[in-house]
Amino acid sequence: MKFITFGEIMLRLQPEGFKRIDQADRYDAFFGGSEANVAVSLARFGAESTYLTKLPDNAVGEKCFKELRGEGVDVSCIVRGGARMGIYFTEKGASQRASTCLYDRAGSSITTLRKEEIDKDKLFAGAGWFHVSGITPALCPELADLTVELMKEAQLKGLVVSCDLNYRKKLWSKEAAKRVMTECMSYTDVLIANEEDVSDVFGLKADGTDIEGGKLSENGYIALGRKVMATFPALSHVAFTLRESFSASKNGWSGLLCSKKGAVRSRRYELDLIDRVGGGDSFSAGLIYALASGQNDEQAINFGIAASALKQSIEGDFNRVTVAEVNKLALGDGSGRIQR
Amino acid sequence: MKFITFGEIMLRLQPEGFKRIDQADRYDAFFGGSEANVAVSLARFGAESTYLTKLPDNAVGEKCFKELRGEGVDVSCIVRGGARMGIYFTEKGASQRASTCLYDRAGSSITTLRKEEIDKDKLFAGAGWFHVSGITPALCPELADLTVELMKEAQLKGLVVSCDLNYRKKLWSKEAAKRVMTECMSYTDVLIANEEDVSDVFGLKADGTDIEGGKLSENGYIALGRKVMATFPALSHVAFTLRESFSASKNGWSGLLCSKKGAVRSRRYELDLIDRVGGGDSFSAGLIYALASGQNDEQAINFGIAASALKQSIEGDFNRVTVAEVNKLALGDGSGRIQR
Amino acid sequence: MKFITFGEIMLRLQPEGFKRIDQADRYDAFFGGSEANVAVSLARFGAESTYLTKLPDNAVGEKCFKELRGEGVDVSCIVRGGARMGIYFTEKGASQRASTCLYDRAGSSITTLRKEEIDKDKLFAGAGWFHVSGITPALCPELADLTVELMKEAQLKGLVVSCDLNYRKKLWSKEAAKRVMTECMSYTDVLIANEEDVSDVFGLKADGTDIEGGKLSENGYIALGRKVMATFPALSHVAFTLRESFSASKNGWSGLLCSKKGAVRSRRYELDLIDRVGGGDSFSAGLIYALASGQNDEQAINFGIAASALKQSIEGDFNRVTVAEVNKLALGDGSGRIQR
Amino acid sequence: MKFITFGEIMLRLQPEGFKRIDQADRYDAFFGGSEANVAVSLARFGAESTYLTKLPDNAVGEKCFKELRGEGVDVSCIVRGGARMGIYFTEKGASQRASTCLYDRAGSSITTLRKEEIDKDKLFAGAGWFHVSGITPALCPELADLTVELMKEAQLKGLVVSCDLNYRKKLWSKEAAKRVMTECMSYTDVLIANEEDVSDVFGLKADGTDIEGGKLSENGYIALGRKVMATFPALSHVAFTLRESFSASKNGWSGLLCSKKGAVRSRRYELDLIDRVGGGDSFSAGLIYALASGQNDEQAINFGIAASALKQSIEGDFNRVTVAEVNKLALGDGSGRIQR
Amino acid sequence: MKFITFGEIMLRLQPEGFKRIDQADRYDAFFGGSEANVAVSLARFGAESTYLTKLPDNAVGEKCFKELRGEGVDVSCIVRGGARMGIYFTEKGASQRASTCLYDRAGSSITTLRKEEIDKDKLFAGAGWFHVSGITPALCPELADLTVELMKEAQLKGLVVSCDLNYRKKLWSKEAAKRVMTECMSYTDVLIANEEDVSDVFGLKADGTDIEGGKLSENGYIALGRKVMATFPALSHVAFTLRESFSASKNGWSGLLCSKKGAVRSRRYELDLIDRVGGGDSFSAGLIYALASGQNDEQAINFGIAASALKQSIEGDFNRVTVAEVNKLALGDGSGRIQR
Amino acid sequence: MKFITFGEIMLRLQPEGFKRIDQADRYDAFFGGSEANVAVSLARFGAESTYLTKLPDNAVGEKCFKELRGEGVDVSCIVRGGARMGIYFTEKGASQRASTCLYDRAGSSITTLRKEEIDKDKLFAGAGWFHVSGITPALCPELADLTVELMKEAQLKGLVVSCDLNYRKKLWSKEAAKRVMTECMSYTDVLIANEEDVSDVFGLKADGTDIEGGKLSENGYIALGRKVMATFPALSHVAFTLRESFSASKNGWSGLLCSKKGAVRSRRYELDLIDRVGGGDSFSAGLIYALASGQNDEQAINFGIAASALKQSIEGDFNRVTVAEVNKLALGDGSGRIQR
Repeated sequence: MKFITFGEIMLRLQPEGFKRIDQADRYDAFFGGSEANVAVSLARFGAESTYLTKLPDNAVGEKCFKELRGEGVDVSCIVRGGARMGIYFTEKGASQRASTCLYDRAGSSITTLRKEEIDKDKLFAGAGWFHVSGITPALCPELADLTVELMKEAQLKGLVVSCDLNYRKKLWSKEAAKRVMTECMSYTDVLIANEEDVSDVFGLKADGTDIEGGKLSENGYIALGRKVMATFPALSHVAFTLRESFSASKNGWSGLLCSKKGAVRSRRYELDLIDRVGGGDSFSAGLIYALASGQNDEQAINFGIAASALKQSIEGDFNRVTVAEVNKLALGDGSGRIQR
Repeated sequence: MKFITFGEIMLRLQPEGFKRIDQADRYDAFFGGSEANVAVSLARFGAESTYLTKLPDNAVGEKCFKELRGEGVDVSCIVRGGARMGIYFTEKGASQRASTCLYDRAGSSITTLRKEEIDKDKLFAGAGWFHVSGITPALCPELADLTVELMKEAQLKGLVVSCDLNYRKKLWSKEAAKRVMTECMSYTDVLIANEEDVSDVFGLKADGTDIEGGKLSENGYIALGRKVMATFPALSHVAFTLRESFSASKNGWSGLLCSKKGAVRSRRYELDLIDRVGGGDSFSAGLIYALASGQNDEQAINFGIAASALKQSIEGDFNRVTVAEVNKLALGDGSGRIQR
Repeated sequence: MKFITFGEIMLRLQPEGFKRIDQADRYDAFFGGSEANVAVSLARFGAESTYLTKLPDNAVGEKCFKELRGEGVDVSCIVRGGARMGIYFTEKGASQRASTCLYDRAGSSITTLRKEEIDKDKLFAGAGWFHVSGITPALCPELADLTVELMKEAQLKGLVVSCDLNYRKKLWSKEAAKRVMTECMSYTDVLIANEEDVSDVFGLKADGTDIEGGKLSENGYIALGRKVMATFPALSHVAFTLRESFSASKNGWSGLLCSKKGAVRSRRYELDLIDRVGGGDSFSAGLIYALASGQNDEQAINFGIAASALKQSIEGDFNRVTVAEVNKLALGDGSGRIQR
Repeated sequence: MKFITFGEIMLRLQPEGFKRIDQADRYDAFFGGSEANVAVSLARFGAESTYLTKLPDNAVGEKCFKELRGEGVDVSCIVRGGARMGIYFTEKGASQRASTCLYDRAGSSITTLRKEEIDKDKLFAGAGWFHVSGITPALCPELADLTVELMKEAQLKGLVVSCDLNYRKKLWSKEAAKRVMTECMSYTDVLIANEEDVSDVFGLKADGTDIEGGKLSENGYIALGRKVMATFPALSHVAFTLRESFSASKNGWSGLLCSKKGAVRSRRYELDLIDRVGGGDSFSAGLIYALASGQNDEQAINFGIAASALKQSIEGDFNRVTVAEVNKLALGDGSGRIQR
Repeated sequence: MKFITFGEIMLRLQPEGFKRIDQADRYDAFFGGSEANVAVSLARFGAESTYLTKLPDNAVGEKCFKELRGEGVDVSCIVRGGARMGIYFTEKGASQRASTCLYDRAGSSITTLRKEEIDKDKLFAGAGWFHVSGITPALCPELADLTVELMKEAQLKGLVVSCDLNYRKKLWSKEAAKRVMTECMSYTDVLIANEEDVSDVFGLKADGTDIEGGKLSENGYIALGRKVMATFPALSHVAFTLRESFSASKNGWSGLLCSKKGAVRSRRYELDLIDRVGGGDSFSAGLIYALASGQNDEQAINFGIAASALKQSIEGDFNRVTVAEVNKLALGDGSGRIQR
Repeated sequence: MKFITFGEIMLRLQPEGFKRIDQADRYDAFFGGSEANVAVSLARFGAESTYLTKLPDNAVGEKCFKELRGEGVDVSCIVRGGARMGIYFTEKGASQRASTCLYDRAGSSITTLRKEEIDKDKLFAGAGWFHVSGITPALCPELADLTVELMKEAQLKGLVVSCDLNYRKKLWSKEAAKRVMTECMSYTDVLIANEEDVSDVFGLKADGTDIEGGKLSENGYIALGRKVMATFPALSHVAFTLRESFSASKNGWSGLLCSKKGAVRSRRYELDLIDRVGGGDSFSAGLIYALASGQNDEQAINFGIAASALKQSIEGDFNRVTVAEVNKLALGDGSGRIQR
């Protein structure tokens, strides 16, 4: 099955080690973006993964293009042109100091992407899944329209459509997000989110009375999942990632997958964080891959959570792991024993 | 209010990552020194921070001068001359292997600093606070005299005077330290120390009968604070940092502030250490800033401890954080959630 | 004398060594911009150097602010705000492969700088010289107006005004440049340019009949200088840099200074290039410093050319040299003998 | 037209800067191999470039696979398996110290490549050119047979066949080379070599009487070209690279292309070497591309030499340039002026 | 007492930080090998440590030779020749992602080492201890024979012989290992192993009925130790390392030493792993040093475990610590307090 | 033959690439010192090379000790103790910008070296050559005495004694140097110097009337050599290095060896400088090695100059080349052709 992802990819610049930006004379350079991260992950799982974006026709755009192509992503639908790559600067946090992202994405090439530039026949040929996040429609009104149009078309063509809410308050207001994302939900089969996103965008919250501690919080999420599915009846699945942020160095990590059949909680991992940027995207990719491969809900949520646990031990946005590596963790070996 | 700090700043050389010195062909270079660290911290908090030291008139001294000036420290009172920057080599420890400091500071420029070289009018103009640590007087007898003289003058001019005991056994004997630091106490309002310093320098210890565990140890520190204040009646405050060294990677971190109004224990943080060098200085800076800003004792100790918790997640001696970042942690968010 | 410079400073990202951008996973980071480079150079010469720009209020802007402050530039007139630092990517060329600059400066903070944000009283207080390049008015119409206005005001207040033509064809058309720069010439005392700039912007060329080889080309430049001074009678000096590009590794480098007293050719250097970006700016700074210090035309052109020869042996845009170092070269020692 | 290249690609490890291997604790890593370098060059020129090799099925092989794919090389015919990537260590020479290559290629995956593993239908589909160097048949007898077989088949299918002699004395004897390469010549249209290769492998030398200096040496090469073409009548072209090694830092670089129409000498460049490894391969790629594009002999030799002049200013084996960049140099601009 | 170690040392290449191999363009280079690691550790403890291996006569071999000589290892018995250094690539794991080792050691120089090349008189002169691991005989049949022969000769000459089982399933089958290692046991005094090795090689397992949890597992190991000693009566000691792999970032670490006098469990450390490669070898070295120095069983196991706890906080295979540092930890201070 | 060298070795810190010290946040670390450089060179030539110095007993001293031992230097006579390693900072110059050395060597361990600490029996056992430079006696009066005493003793024991004048004006006055070095000349067989040294220390200059250009300048040096030999009749040889400093990037390099048999000029090399620090020392080592090996004057001066030409293409003070590499250059191949 061919998977389509659609969104922006940016150049990510990060000071070496744990230096702050205002100390740095040297940056490590990565590329990343919510949907691109999903695209790379799927390609590395061996899937046919086509990524739609617009990249500038300069040396930085070329580097990005090659890196995606190198990872095995089908880059034949990528449009070239526009003025610039968006950029984001990250600082690696530790202990009580949070990691930070500083975005410099205004005027990036993708905001100039227009419907006419896309070769839709090529894009949809042989495709079975379409994925987008809430960042893409937030970038500009034209992309909001384009996102909705592509989701609609994907649904019409019989593709499974997934959407990661990914609310970014610096890009648009809650009202705008609610309006657009609500429309998106009509065309969405699988919704991926965290509690905060659902509350920010749709105003849906877990029932207060249910939440008092660890166990109950799970029930709260299950209830919230039910509410979301009731609100958007087109959905077949709602998936939540449950991040417990003890510090910038240590997190608890698990997930919950709700469907008509009920809700399944994944295994939970204690993470020593190396790079949490892209953690959610690697979950999306894992979940999508697992569902598309016919895994049942329990398998799928565990595959997605294991994949994203591994991602957070790797530098850069992309989840550079194989299906075998994910399965090894999902099916039990999290001992980190050396592999000779 | 203008803050004056006085002491030595050195070039710090550290092998990359966790290499030991005897492996290293490459060093990361930082600058640091107890009072300079306080000066930079205060400047970054937005305060007017003037730093008094003596730097050699060569390229390394110039680099240091520029770095301080870049951080916003008022460098107009820095004297130039003398033979060399002091240097110290550090190894970053981990787990059971301690970090180490190897000092090469003999004959450094500051040891040639003489009273006549200092423009005192400029230095004290508009100043409200004077800070020094026990390292400065330990460097040589002339600096001991100069330190006492400046403290005295600061007190006469109505400045608040703070002193971080910072006993360094490689620089002077306990006897010499006791003699000089006791004199210093006559001019000191705020004393900053840890238990070991107080015992080494003044021979004051927490009552043994009180100490049996976590809770009681706090009482021990409170009692010790009372003793110190009784011994040195000029003091308005005594602050202790309470470091629990589980390993070179993990520490518990909190503080205690004693005044006539009683003693207040700060919030406690579990630290995943990135760089603990300069941790105490960042506490001093935080405490000084908070007290000078009119925060009450509880606020002040919490501000100081939060500031220094953040510092220990950053590479280099300087605490590269803002007041807003400290307040965010002090007022509750230590989750390390990513900041987008 | 206080020197004012006004323009944009950008973050410069450059792959390590001689890698091309499409190979690079790591960038060295510098800051640079035509007028900022002049400002830093003047500050390093020991002059009072105030720099006017607008920097974003984020970590990258802060790093830049600190670096300028560290170099001794007076940053008290810098306005903070706007969305972003402009960025430019450079590739270091060698042999027959040219160095390249890829600009990503659209929407940078300085394009939002408005007259009302500038504290003119503070800016002009005590100032004796005003410098700008043709890049600043090219950035947007508002900056073109502001540039003209500041030049006019500088002239009225009796400052010497210098202008480096610096024509950038990607920023504006020749027509627009001609219109604005012609107006600027009414307020300019010292014009700095190369032959190409003068031709592109003003349509002035050296008489063809004069140019047949090395010696005659000098005569051509002298004639061109006369023409420029005849066209813009407000000018007291016109200075040309004469770069002979044998390859990206080797250049000949000299200059010519024309005034009413005639034309003087500088000494000529054979350069082994380390970093030619900022070469012209370091010439401007040297020339300005020398003229302002009362050096005669021959001394001034030789000081400027020696300063810029040194710059091109140093990494980064800034000319990190002292007056003593420039004089040593200008007055004769270009042997590169080791200094112990 | 699709171009096929066939050979080994290795991991190249090189100490940073100009360090020698016995100083190095850190290596920069590149991939390179004679035919792979040609393949990447052609792909970057925009050509359809398919590369045949065998790569191990491990992380290092995967990195290589992705890098080739990223460069736009068609990797669909690459066979996976075998034990290891060949490795070579390089030291960057300078001045009188030569660069060195230390090969560790025994037992590399490609030596286990067998005819049955190759999907010949896919490989040859749509192909118009086949290129190989004398390194491939030297690796082991099986590869010698395979090389001859593929060349023969290519000729039968009507492809143009080119061969770079590339004699490696550490891999096989002159006798073995002569035997195999002579057979190869029956199927070769375009032979690429330097004088030493032709002498080592075929025992053909330029007539001594002709060679006395610069000009005459050119005649000597022309005569040698005639001899080679007389000996191997299947050849349509013989191309020589003429490297004048003044030192490890400076070379003269030009080429000569002989055909039935006569001999054409290219423009000559003075190179400041950044990385000469892969220089010959970038020439082959340029020549092949030019001939296949219908350029005449003069254009083709100049395109090839310009391409390879650029390569030698770039780090790593691959020639990371575009057709436009090569044309710019070939058609005249070698000034290395900065490109803004 | 002189200690002899015998085995292979390889070049170890590791991507910077936590990058995966398929991301890496730069490797940090170390040298390591089970017995070489022991040899370096012993030399750093101040012991006379002679290491027998075969290194290629090229620049990489020379770098390795110098590094060993630099560490104080007696390199006078090292044979030079053969084709290549074995290489292994490591990825540093974290959290749930395991570290990996990718070996490329086929055809390495040591596999060509023959009895006649060894100067046995020099090797054994003054020696008191001989150490080898199960890796050496696994490399090729000739080395299996040579290993047995050297162990036998060592025993005859009255040396204490130690052997670290170190079973590597990629090098030989369990059957081959059992056959050879059983023969080795006739000449071995001190066997070092973990439970898995003993089971893989000798088929000996701890009694199932005993193992139910933490405490009982210790009993299981004690029982296993008894079984091993009963099976191989020549043994005086059997030592087990007990690694609890919670994740690739956190391990529990302790050991057990069994002898005729009974079994002693060491102190247990919680490790924050920096580099666990070489952990077992540093234990062997510590244990050997302690036993050879006349420490009793309890002291010896604690010395060995403390030594190896420190190693795992240091980058590279070698345990760069002194006896004083080990004793400091073994005798109680694991607080990681900074050493000034 | 065993060679003894005696002097100081320092830690050398150098910013990466061509950065200036006031830009640098990272230093590459080397070790170097005039006599240590000679010692390493001799050891790498395969000679028995014992080096006498005093190193501090700390981690930096240990790193240095290991590096020397690694290079094959006999470190058994090195005394351990004293307070610190001397340090020097270097900036790599280019083009018209000179390289600089900033020394921080006061109070280094060697200045505390006393006669009683040296095991002279061990030192002189089997030795045939003693080498020292004029830096050692300049460090402090005690070392001046010790130098003279060791030279005297060496002469008495029948060793050949060589001395490199190496005048350092920052260490002592011309008068002091003249007094001590004149005494040294009584015990010296081979004097190594450049014209400036001879003039500064002994006030001997080439006759002005002889010097008018290239050829005559050689005669001037020959005449100077005669004068020196006439002044100090104990000398058998005087060797001059002739450096033509065109720039910090390009030098001419040759030498002249005078003896009773007359004067021989070496071959001359055009150097593209990578690191000229240690150039003179590598010449000394080459000359010493050649003379001690029985080469005639012409061979010896050519060997010394070729060795030092190679050194200046390598990073760091040490000349990391073999006799074979030197001979290859000395006997003709300076083409820098790649070595495969």
